[in-house]
This record gives sequence, C-alpha cells and structure tokens, in this order.
Amino acid sequence: MKVYLAGPDVFLPDAVEIGRIKVDLCARYGLTGLYPLDDAMDAAARDSLSIFRDNEAMMIEADAIIANLTPFRGPGADAGTAYELGYMAGRGKLCLGYSNDPSAYADRVRKFTEVSSRKGRLVDETGLIIEDFGLSDNLMMIHALELHGCALVLPRQGPADIWHDLSAFESCVRMAAERLAAEPASVAR
Amino acid sequence: MKVYLAGPDVFLPDAVEIGRIKVDLCARYGLTGLYPLDDAMDAAARDSLSIFRDNEAMMIEADAIIANLTPFRGPGADAGTAYELGYMAGRGKLCLGYSNDPSAYADRVRKFTEVSSRKGRLVDETGLIIEDFGLSDNLMMIHALELHGCALVLPRQGPADIWHDLSAFESCVRMAAERLAAEPASVAR
Repeated sequence: MKVYLAGPDVFLPDAVEIGRIKVDLCARYGLTGLYPLDDAMDAAARDSLSIFRDNEAMMIEADAIIANLTPFRGPGADAGTAYELGYMAGRGKLCLGYSNDPSAYADRVRKFTEVSSRKGRLVDETGLIIEDFGLSDNLMMIHALELHGCALVLPRQGPADIWHDLSAFESCVRMAAERLAAEPASVAR
Repeated sequence: MKVYLAGPDVFLPDAVEIGRIKVDLCARYGLTGLYPLDDAMDAAARDSLSIFRDNEAMMIEADAIIANLTPFRGPGADAGTAYELGYMAGRGKLCLGYSNDPSAYADRVRKFTEVSSRKGRLVDETGLIIEDFGLSDNLMMIHALELHGCALVLPRQGPADIWHDLSAFESCVRMAAERLAAEPASVAR
C-alpha cells in the first residue's frame, strides 16, 4: 500500500530528513511512504507548478493519505494539507490524519483573538462565528477522517516538540497497515 | 449547472443572508447555487456530523465549486474550504475560487509573525519556511484552480468589506456560466 505523507513538514528546516524518517517508519510496517520532497534535490530550485504536478501525481498513485493536521501558522491546520486530504477523500482513498495539539479548536482560537459570546454563539474579535463542537479542527476534516478512514489521532497531551514527535504519526501508520492486513485484496493495488 | 458555494461565509453573523444573495447571483447567470446553510433552520441546532453529511451530499450533487479563499483567522484560507476545494478537484469537478485579499501569501505572513531570511529562504519566527512564489496562497490550491477550472480571481485592490463584497465572486459565477455555455453537453448533468 502506498501512502501519501501530507503535512506542513515540508516547511520545516529539516524537511527532507523528517520525510526520510517518516518513509522509514512506513517501511517498518510494510507500507510505501510517498513524501512530497522525495525526489527533490532542492525544493527551492523548483517552480511552484512542477511541485503541484509532482504532488498531484503522487496522490493519484497513492492508496491512502496520512495528513499532519497539527495547527500551522494560526489556530487550524495548514490549508495545503487540508486541500490534499480533501483531494484524497474525493478520490475515495483511505484517509488518516493526526494532530500533535490535542486541544479543541475553539480553545485554540482564544490564543489568537479575543473571544466573546453573541446570541449564544462564540465569536472572534471580527465577529466571525467560531466552530464550537469540541472538535480539534474544522468539522469537514474531522468527520472526513471518521467516515473515509480512521478517526483523527491525537496525543493525550501535546509533545514537547510538535513538529518532530512522530508517535501520533506512527499510530496512523499502524492503523493503515492493519487495514491492509484486513483487506488482502488491496495488496494488489 | 449546480455550483457548491464554499467559504467561511458560513461563519459570518449574517451567514444565511449572504448565502441567499450568492444563490440569487448564481440564478441570474442560469446556475443553481448550493450553499451549506440552505436547508438549515439554525446551524447551531445541528450536530457536526449531520452538517458534514449534508455538505458532502451537496458537493457530490454539484458540478462545480466556487471557493471563497479570502484569508480566514490567519494568513491563509480557511482549512474547511481548502478541504472542500480538494474534494471537488479529486472528483474531477470544475474548480473556481476567489480571494478578496490580493496580496501575496508571503507578504501577508509578515502581519502575523516576524519574518527573516535563512539560507536564502524566508522563515517565520518559529523557523518554518514561508512559501515565497509570489502566489496568493498555498500552491496546491492556486494551481488546482488553474489546472482544474479557472485561475483564482483577485480584486485589483482589496474591497473595504472583504466579507460582503461579491465582485470577485460574481466574476467566478460568470466564468462558470461561460463554461456551461461552451460545453452544452454538461447542461444535462
């Protein structure tokens, strides 16, 4: 089973190395990890359209996605990763994901903006309503994982290094491998 | 042609009204707009899973998506909207989108975090690399629109009310209608 490894990991200073570690972890469970920087000598040297085409080709090739939904540059997940999770859900692929921040979305928003209550609903300082279902992030992503793969994996408490701790990632790899074992027909994919 | 109207518009205090206006604008161009709050007496009264199911059913029914990618609660697009754009791209639907903030992503990040240069690449204050291709947002969404529909629509300068100005939205509606006229076979869809 080929698994597309989505996430803002590609923006880490050690993006290539973290990708190698993730791919190695996949191999340990019998899975082939496809990481967006796999074949890039230097992502900075590539133009954005060729990166898009490479990533899309990898997603089409993959049977599953493991999306890193750890909050990125704001209270929620990286929009590029969210796009990719949607793309894979739309194509009927197995969807898995994790976040290294176990707090609820509404609680996280409080760190970025003043929050108040208006007509019984939470709003931010610009008056926009804050999703308050106790979920970790936007309901579309959370329920997509539940219904199109496995429920979002969250650590019991946030690790010291949210960008390099791979415990929750490894749980996703394990679950993907278990699915593979349960559905032997998919071996041929 | 049925068009799914995605965006953080659903979080506006006047979410239902802005949806009605968008649906009316679609009708003026011969399109049927499907808006996530269409059939909700009160979104707050619904549980998150039923909202997900309703939205997914609407996306499956729609032939196209118009995604509002105006930056939401941070420097980039709403992750829920990004997920939906990906879902529609994955299903091969016609993808359109707009943002009411014409600035480049990298410039927008400067408003949220200290930006510096490391080894020739822009990084934020946590050391994460900032995409710096001069694009309006994450390359996956921008190029998905180009290759799976129409290029992102941006106003020449940001409107006074980024959440209620519908000029860029109307451009998307017009382009979707033109596609419909150019491909008469799709009328039957």
